[in-house]
Amino acid sequence: MDCVFCKIVNGDIPSLKVYEDEHTLVFMDIARDVDGHMIAIPKRHVKNILDCDEATLIHLITTVKLVANYCVEKCGYEGVNLLNASDESAGQSVPHFHIHIIPRTKNDQVDAWPKFDGALNKIEEIYEKIKIK
Amino acid sequence: MDCVFCKIVNGDIPSLKVYEDEHTLVFMDIARDVDGHMIAIPKRHVKNILDCDEATLIHLITTVKLVANYCVEKCGYEGVNLLNASDESAGQSVPHFHIHIIPRTKNDQVDAWPKFDGALNKIEEIYEKIKIK
Repeated sequence: MDCVFCKIVNGDIPSLKVYEDEHTLVFMDIARDVDGHMIAIPKRHVKNILDCDEATLIHLITTVKLVANYCVEKCGYEGVNLLNASDESAGQSVPHFHIHIIPRTKNDQVDAWPKFDGALNKIEEIYEKIKIK
Repeated sequence: MDCVFCKIVNGDIPSLKVYEDEHTLVFMDIARDVDGHMIAIPKRHVKNILDCDEATLIHLITTVKLVANYCVEKCGYEGVNLLNASDESAGQSVPHFHIHIIPRTKNDQVDAWPKFDGALNKIEEIYEKIKIK
């Protein structure tokens, strides 16, 4: 499997592992863009939330919560941002399901939130399209 | 309970409901900043992922996946961005756990991803602080 995150799981690519269990792994993002930026992944290769089975999804979100709580309870952080891109259209760069965890403190000057800037029109039409029938 | 999202759950504030079940609700974000911007919440009032019980967390992420799949399989979207701010330090504005869902298509010109711009130094020191012992 020519997947960077699978290689990290297998140890073929080194990583700074924050947390690991049977089903999940959390490691430091090597982008080194924001202090504390972590990546949480399932060990099982699924592309993103769209094709993820329920058990894998539950393992992953449980690990994300565990790490978030640890950051706040033990490491001096006050909160976290969680971010996910599912599909290339959403900006997903590595096709292995991953959730970004950004630990935060007040006044940390970190920009970890999008501007939510984009086409905007006809919320009612979009609602009719999206609403689950 | 003087919580805007609890009032939406109770129907005291109207909303465009995309999906609802016993434990969760998804509605259109009234910020009207990005087409299709939705908010997924547990009906139970918890502040964020930090104080969320496991069952509520699983209900919420399962609903997020359901809506994401529906957007892609039935509504012509190709992917989604998922975003969460847990705690005021992370930019959480409404103190009721919520996950933003932004449906995406290629070339939609939507900015739904942060710049990840912030203080950066000493990844090894930060790793030693964050690593779960």
